[in-house]
Amino acid sequence: MSARSGIVTLLTDFGHRDPYVGIMKGVVLSLRPSVQLVDLTHEVAPQDVTEAGFALCGSFPYFPPGTVHVVVVDPGVGTRRRIVCASAHGSIFLAPDNGVLTEVCAAADAVHEVTDSALFRDGELSQTFHGRDIFAPVAARLAGGLEVAAVGPAIDDPVRLDHPTPTVQPGGAICGAVVHVDRFGNLITNVRADQLDALPEDRRQVRILGVEVGTPVSSYGAVSPGAPLAIVDSYGFLEVAVNGGSAEKHFNALRGDSVRVG
Amino acid sequence: MSARSGIVTLLTDFGHRDPYVGIMKGVVLSLRPSVQLVDLTHEVAPQDVTEAGFALCGSFPYFPPGTVHVVVVDPGVGTRRRIVCASAHGSIFLAPDNGVLTEVCAAADAVHEVTDSALFRDGELSQTFHGRDIFAPVAARLAGGLEVAAVGPAIDDPVRLDHPTPTVQPGGAICGAVVHVDRFGNLITNVRADQLDALPEDRRQVRILGVEVGTPVSSYGAVSPGAPLAIVDSYGFLEVAVNGGSAEKHFNALRGDSVRVG
Amino acid sequence: MSARSGIVTLLTDFGHRDPYVGIMKGVVLSLRPSVQLVDLTHEVAPQDVTEAGFALCGSFPYFPPGTVHVVVVDPGVGTRRRIVCASAHGSIFLAPDNGVLTEVCAAADAVHEVTDSALFRDGELSQTFHGRDIFAPVAARLAGGLEVAAVGPAIDDPVRLDHPTPTVQPGGAICGAVVHVDRFGNLITNVRADQLDALPEDRRQVRILGVEVGTPVSSYGAVSPGAPLAIVDSYGFLEVAVNGGSAEKHFNALRGDSVRVG
Repeated sequence: MSARSGIVTLLTDFGHRDPYVGIMKGVVLSLRPSVQLVDLTHEVAPQDVTEAGFALCGSFPYFPPGTVHVVVVDPGVGTRRRIVCASAHGSIFLAPDNGVLTEVCAAADAVHEVTDSALFRDGELSQTFHGRDIFAPVAARLAGGLEVAAVGPAIDDPVRLDHPTPTVQPGGAICGAVVHVDRFGNLITNVRADQLDALPEDRRQVRILGVEVGTPVSSYGAVSPGAPLAIVDSYGFLEVAVNGGSAEKHFNALRGDSVRVG
Repeated sequence: MSARSGIVTLLTDFGHRDPYVGIMKGVVLSLRPSVQLVDLTHEVAPQDVTEAGFALCGSFPYFPPGTVHVVVVDPGVGTRRRIVCASAHGSIFLAPDNGVLTEVCAAADAVHEVTDSALFRDGELSQTFHGRDIFAPVAARLAGGLEVAAVGPAIDDPVRLDHPTPTVQPGGAICGAVVHVDRFGNLITNVRADQLDALPEDRRQVRILGVEVGTPVSSYGAVSPGAPLAIVDSYGFLEVAVNGGSAEKHFNALRGDSVRVG
Repeated sequence: MSARSGIVTLLTDFGHRDPYVGIMKGVVLSLRPSVQLVDLTHEVAPQDVTEAGFALCGSFPYFPPGTVHVVVVDPGVGTRRRIVCASAHGSIFLAPDNGVLTEVCAAADAVHEVTDSALFRDGELSQTFHGRDIFAPVAARLAGGLEVAAVGPAIDDPVRLDHPTPTVQPGGAICGAVVHVDRFGNLITNVRADQLDALPEDRRQVRILGVEVGTPVSSYGAVSPGAPLAIVDSYGFLEVAVNGGSAEKHFNALRGDSVRVG
């Protein structure tokens, strides 16, 4: 039996209006009362697999090894889409096989399809709420030490999503995109810190939607209140922000908008 | 002493902007540090007793026996409305006596009025926040094994709300209504699966607001993306949905709108 | 070692869309798995230090002594603003030194600046997410019994904010302001119950934005549904509400609007 932290994290698009997340917790605690449940977020845009994967990758490294991370953003619930369980980075990941685990599976020791219905909730299986009937009971059992290999057969073809990565132009300029807008209106891009470092310092001029925002600074407070700035964020990606304000509003920017450095 | 699970669930209309829920948790944990607190939802529409009862009934069956379920949706706080504690389905329910426990009380072993002020929070009683001063401390004590009968006298007349139930027409057609719209825009109706089953299969045509949506299918993915569908939901009720979309927007539908089968 | 309750509360402006709060919890639990985490609120308006202080003061008295209360509403993250740790009211408070602890520090036994980087998260320190890299690990250690004096040197000049307090006019009338609007649209003012009590009963006429709402009543239900009322709220402050409705909408009122008694 592998060591487990006793923690189960939940990441869904269920929102807070309905009791769906609470129901999943009831199922987990019914099977394993000692589990410590932690919410990552439940406000992923409905059925937005890319956003869910982004939130997961930014979160799991900060949990103890042996944590079970459950993602239920599942537009294909009730269809023949598979459910996958991956062992990676010393922890366990459980999610629909829709690409939400693309980065996790790329580094996984093992990926298994969840097929053993003896691990599911007793009673008839709903076709609309696998979070309750499959993900929660399987997560409880994984948190209790169930081996990943015990959930079903190993697979080598989990669904992978192609996330757009920045392109580097002949002259060295980096062309990337906004991949997330957070609550503060910060624009998180897919340009990595090491890509910035590869440019000479005087070439690190950042442009968002064609508008100049200067070279990266070391804190929001390095510019005047209300002024835009570029900064390397807490995940190691280039972020465009406004000191004391919202870059989303300042630039009228959206996910997918272009960012250019150099 | 009856067995308790050590879990207390909270279902309120307090929202997430104010710390009211956190304050209730502080009071519970001050009295009984080992309690495991689970949020069902705090985004019930303000003072919407019907919505709260719906959320409760869909949630409590998934928790272990001996769980204490606390509902604070309480438009009558500070008036002479009673507070009730019911023992039902092997668990404990604590709520204002405003009909939110209608279904629970119908199946209860015992219903008591909460009157023993020795169980309340020490100090002056607020007339606006009984969640903090009465519900939380009584819940902590119930979670610790306090008998339901110890909270106050048994009553036999808890407030009951008449929830509209579907009518069956002479020819067998079922006329029901939308009772809940969830975060995904799914329209949950009050038509039960067994009522559908009583109709011949070729008579199970579902209409919402007069618009045809076909006979119930087995998963959202059984129709094309963007297409509407009918399905039996995870609670055993007829639901109208849109694959990958929102039936609420598609049909411009609201709670209370009519649904017809047959 | 001082006694600790094992509880850590979190109060931020991080919202629920991003996993920032979950990440902080991962860091706390990695260092101290037995901590019980309680959310106060994460929906403080972005960077609104005053609102955060108001929520904190209304919440901490309901937690056991020895609780660690963490506030991360931190417009100055990454600048030279200090981080402070205060021992007050038998509990521990950890926050940026931006005035959010004004009331707490006024009653503190000791206030220390957090400077010992050995207490921070291992690895490079982000300049945008001190919640993860400093507040969470220091909170975990404080919950484990670390003395406040061990975080860094004592200071005697924490930032204090001047919160507007009601003025009393020569004739005795009280002029105050709305300091908070809650989810129900209740208007919480800065007029204290003892200030009301100092007026003769027949002088306690409350006006909001110049409109008469009568003398304080003892419950929302003391007036007709839809009617406005004044009441002493659960924190001991004068509140203007509407029975079964929203005073915010009824009066088209905002934080900062004037209230007058007498």
